[in-house]
Amino acid sequence: MNAYRSHTCGQLTAADAGNTVRLSGWVHRVRDHGGVLFIDLRDHYGITQVIADSDSPAFSTLEKLRAETVIRIDGKVKLRDASLVNPKLSTGEIEVYATDVEVLGASDDLPLPVFGDQDYPEETRLAYRFLDLRRESLHNNIMLRSRVIKWLRDAMWDAGFTEFQTPIITASSPEGARDFLVPSRLHPGKFYALPQAPQQFKQLIMVAGFDRYFQIAPCFRDEDPRADRSPTDFYQLDVEMSFVEQKDVFAAVQPVIQGLFETFGNGRRVDSNWPLIPYVESLKKYGTDKPDLRNPIEMVDVSEHFRGSGFGIFAKLLEQEGTEVRAIPAPTGGSRKFADRMNAFAQQQGLPGMGYIFWRKDDAGATEAAGPIAKALGPEKTEAIRAALNLKEGDAVFFLGGKPSDFEAVAGRARTEIGRELGLIDENQFKFAWIVDFPMYEKTDDGRIDFSHNPFSMPQGGMEALNGDPLKVHAYQYDLACNGYELISGGIRNHTPEIMFKAFEIAGYGRDEVEKRFGGMVKAFRYGAPPHGGCAAGIDRIVMLLADEQNIREVIMFPMNQRAEDLMMGAPSEPTNEQLRELRLRVLPKDA
Amino acid sequence: MNAYRSHTCGQLTAADAGNTVRLSGWVHRVRDHGGVLFIDLRDHYGITQVIADSDSPAFSTLEKLRAETVIRIDGKVKLRDASLVNPKLSTGEIEVYATDVEVLGASDDLPLPVFGDQDYPEETRLAYRFLDLRRESLHNNIMLRSRVIKWLRDAMWDAGFTEFQTPIITASSPEGARDFLVPSRLHPGKFYALPQAPQQFKQLIMVAGFDRYFQIAPCFRDEDPRADRSPTDFYQLDVEMSFVEQKDVFAAVQPVIQGLFETFGNGRRVDSNWPLIPYVESLKKYGTDKPDLRNPIEMVDVSEHFRGSGFGIFAKLLEQEGTEVRAIPAPTGGSRKFADRMNAFAQQQGLPGMGYIFWRKDDAGATEAAGPIAKALGPEKTEAIRAALNLKEGDAVFFLGGKPSDFEAVAGRARTEIGRELGLIDENQFKFAWIVDFPMYEKTDDGRIDFSHNPFSMPQGGMEALNGDPLKVHAYQYDLACNGYELISGGIRNHTPEIMFKAFEIAGYGRDEVEKRFGGMVKAFRYGAPPHGGCAAGIDRIVMLLADEQNIREVIMFPMNQRAEDLMMGAPSEPTNEQLRELRLRVLPKDA
Repeated sequence: MNAYRSHTCGQLTAADAGNTVRLSGWVHRVRDHGGVLFIDLRDHYGITQVIADSDSPAFSTLEKLRAETVIRIDGKVKLRDASLVNPKLSTGEIEVYATDVEVLGASDDLPLPVFGDQDYPEETRLAYRFLDLRRESLHNNIMLRSRVIKWLRDAMWDAGFTEFQTPIITASSPEGARDFLVPSRLHPGKFYALPQAPQQFKQLIMVAGFDRYFQIAPCFRDEDPRADRSPTDFYQLDVEMSFVEQKDVFAAVQPVIQGLFETFGNGRRVDSNWPLIPYVESLKKYGTDKPDLRNPIEMVDVSEHFRGSGFGIFAKLLEQEGTEVRAIPAPTGGSRKFADRMNAFAQQQGLPGMGYIFWRKDDAGATEAAGPIAKALGPEKTEAIRAALNLKEGDAVFFLGGKPSDFEAVAGRARTEIGRELGLIDENQFKFAWIVDFPMYEKTDDGRIDFSHNPFSMPQGGMEALNGDPLKVHAYQYDLACNGYELISGGIRNHTPEIMFKAFEIAGYGRDEVEKRFGGMVKAFRYGAPPHGGCAAGIDRIVMLLADEQNIREVIMFPMNQRAEDLMMGAPSEPTNEQLRELRLRVLPKDA
Repeated sequence: MNAYRSHTCGQLTAADAGNTVRLSGWVHRVRDHGGVLFIDLRDHYGITQVIADSDSPAFSTLEKLRAETVIRIDGKVKLRDASLVNPKLSTGEIEVYATDVEVLGASDDLPLPVFGDQDYPEETRLAYRFLDLRRESLHNNIMLRSRVIKWLRDAMWDAGFTEFQTPIITASSPEGARDFLVPSRLHPGKFYALPQAPQQFKQLIMVAGFDRYFQIAPCFRDEDPRADRSPTDFYQLDVEMSFVEQKDVFAAVQPVIQGLFETFGNGRRVDSNWPLIPYVESLKKYGTDKPDLRNPIEMVDVSEHFRGSGFGIFAKLLEQEGTEVRAIPAPTGGSRKFADRMNAFAQQQGLPGMGYIFWRKDDAGATEAAGPIAKALGPEKTEAIRAALNLKEGDAVFFLGGKPSDFEAVAGRARTEIGRELGLIDENQFKFAWIVDFPMYEKTDDGRIDFSHNPFSMPQGGMEALNGDPLKVHAYQYDLACNGYELISGGIRNHTPEIMFKAFEIAGYGRDEVEKRFGGMVKAFRYGAPPHGGCAAGIDRIVMLLADEQNIREVIMFPMNQRAEDLMMGAPSEPTNEQLRELRLRVLPKDA
């Protein structure tokens, strides 16, 4: 017999009754019922109830066991009384009467219990991650993550993609964030960088003639930590295809992502209708480029109703160029209490407030528009707004005015808040949309023109478009939004050196600088580059959505804390002098 | 129709004859047969012959195309004449008459041709890797690598293992090599390390209660480059299992590795008999702990035949303690010419030479032992040696004497050389052996006791053995040798804090230092650690064996050169002052 087990702790059933077995696992819980010990023995596969009475030679060892001790027991499988069968356990029909026991791994008193659901401070959980990971929900999250990644890999291979590994110790990849650097010992004073993404490499793979690439790719960005972002390394499903247009990428990706959510969505509905929403329209209707389409509210430009109206604040505001008034309809939100709450929400978000109208029954039983704006606008305009927004008694509408760039983000959050408060969001589904036609350029605060997103995307209209007004150029660049998150980002790439130089020139980068920063890729494009494009999907975020978790550390086996420290392993740490000498580096004092 | 293709360049067959199609790809080769152009159009999937005559509107563009230009053509599929069918191409039955062409990606004159087999200097190949990768053999190697990794993943999942990702930016993992360091910006003066292997993490995964782990794991060692080792990052199939003994690991691993070689071995035989060879025996018989068992030669200790014999050199040498004389039998090597060549080989390897006897037919037709040693030993002892080694007329035997540690490595290489020269090695097969019972400790040159391999392995005999002579302690540590390479290394781990502290104490590490260097793992072992063990297989080396390549750069998409530089991307490179300032680092001048 194997030294440690004949079966796992999730394996024995009524069919094994009468057999002698050997099990190993962790002591999950011990109950002493007057001279009879009931031990829940746990391993990765399940829990088996082990019993012993004072007749058992194992009794004296078993009664002294601390929780989480690892033991091996030999024993005999017995059917439980019908009344004691536990249908929640795969082994619930049986128990094992222990005749022998061996302690394989002792346990000190636990800083963090494994049994039970009690919350513990995150620092404790991270310092004792090996205990936290034994707890059921985290254990399940990590297994879910592994299965999700396996499923994605299989789906990508099935769709004709091949996984290639790209270098991890490499040159800087300019994705806009900060690189992690790695000092070179063989070339002191020079540094490698960890890739922010395999962007250039995947494009080079296309130029190298491989047709459909994917990778579950580790990415590294030295960014300040956030709840939904790992402060050091994270994983993306990285995809690139040759000889494709935007629609071909969408056609390849949708079945994979939709299938993934159908498989692991735990019964939540997965909408198969993925609309294409232009970036500008998304900002207008939803106040964000990652709209939550489970929320039925769509914002509407109602400037015309306020222009020259009796509501002086907006009327005056609209005299300035580039301003507008936007309405957020709030079906079923028609009460002063709700309206005041939303107004307070806007104030919390740094706006002076949100004007509103709501419709209620008046004393005579007729529908009446209430609120200061309705009064100032007068009944005709108020009614026109109601009709335009298709609202009725019991509903409300909120207004935000000014330059869209000043209020749009808050408007988006208000839309979410209103939808949530009014219960308009069906939590039990996943709704997707491709956000398309991102602007290629934007004006920076100091008035320069810069890339608004990925500089490697192909401008729609090519060279001709670049010779016009750059702020009107759209890029073949797209995001996939799901339930308010950006799951995927991608683009059709600029594979033509001359268009690329022109695109960078507009953003203020000379030919020399482009050659210097992206020399490998530019060189490659001179020797027969295919049209190509792709995207990257955030694995951690997908798993968070599927596991219904708000914190990325709940879906990563060994995460850093928010200060980018590994509390269990003690990273980062002081280097030795020998290490610094070999790298020819000196650490400067704090005030240097 | 899709903008770029209706079919790939590997897809069209006789069944498509008469259809209008669209293809995109690279211009592999253009031949002009008196006004008719024959263009081999290539993509990832294959090659299609495109033709055009002067009647075609595409002709004038096509006749000016440089090799490796990317084009899109529209055309009509035609059956080839029976005499022109090319059975080597999947599309060999047809050709496409081009009616329209578009240049999608122009090409300059090539620094490295794609068509043809000519060798190019490695520096050129690496600087233009995107061209080199289009060449058939490298393209195939990279696809093989991807398929091997996919196959391994599937096999591991099928065997009940789960893949987990371990951190890449983390703490130093003391595997004996040099760490790559990553300076921390949030904690200036402190450094992360890239993992040399996920050794501690995989053990922590076992302590966390996951049962069977694997990972295609990126590993990082700052070592001086070698032909069969990447100077920066490399991949291993990393495996760990709980509740196992050594034999359980072997039983889990053999089907995976054997199946892999059967699947991708390209018809070479895969021996299913994997003997267990103790480390000491392997050194004795083969002069190495990674024997090539395709070579039938086994070395034998023949000291007894030389002790006090007439061959003074060996007789004298054997009077010193710790010396021995080892014989390398060389069946069919019985000629002075061969014996002299092997003697010269030993001299090249830094030894004074290799004595030998060979057996030939004398003038009377009887078997005669020849060579100076035979003369000095006399016929009786010479015959005893012949009989002991089971040699006959036409065979030879070589001798090496001294302390085994001084000659064993050369003896191993001589064994390989003799086997190769005499054609005794059947190249057409893979032969495996587990090398077991590695010594736990060794004496260093300065007389200290140190770990000879992995400090985390469990000493055979546990605490009791550690209380005896440490140089006699074997570890539960094993390698898998295949055709002269070490493919896998692993061990059953020391999961008991007290035995671990004792093991380190013997090697001169105090409790404090162990706590400091491996604190995370030692802490974990105090809270219920299961017995566990595993191994790691070198992916790059496996692919090299399967692809029959001698250089690791032939099986990696974007390798560094031997000086750890990426010639295509320009890594490593100078950091900006801003980057150094953020990290609070200064690069010291060369003579500092």
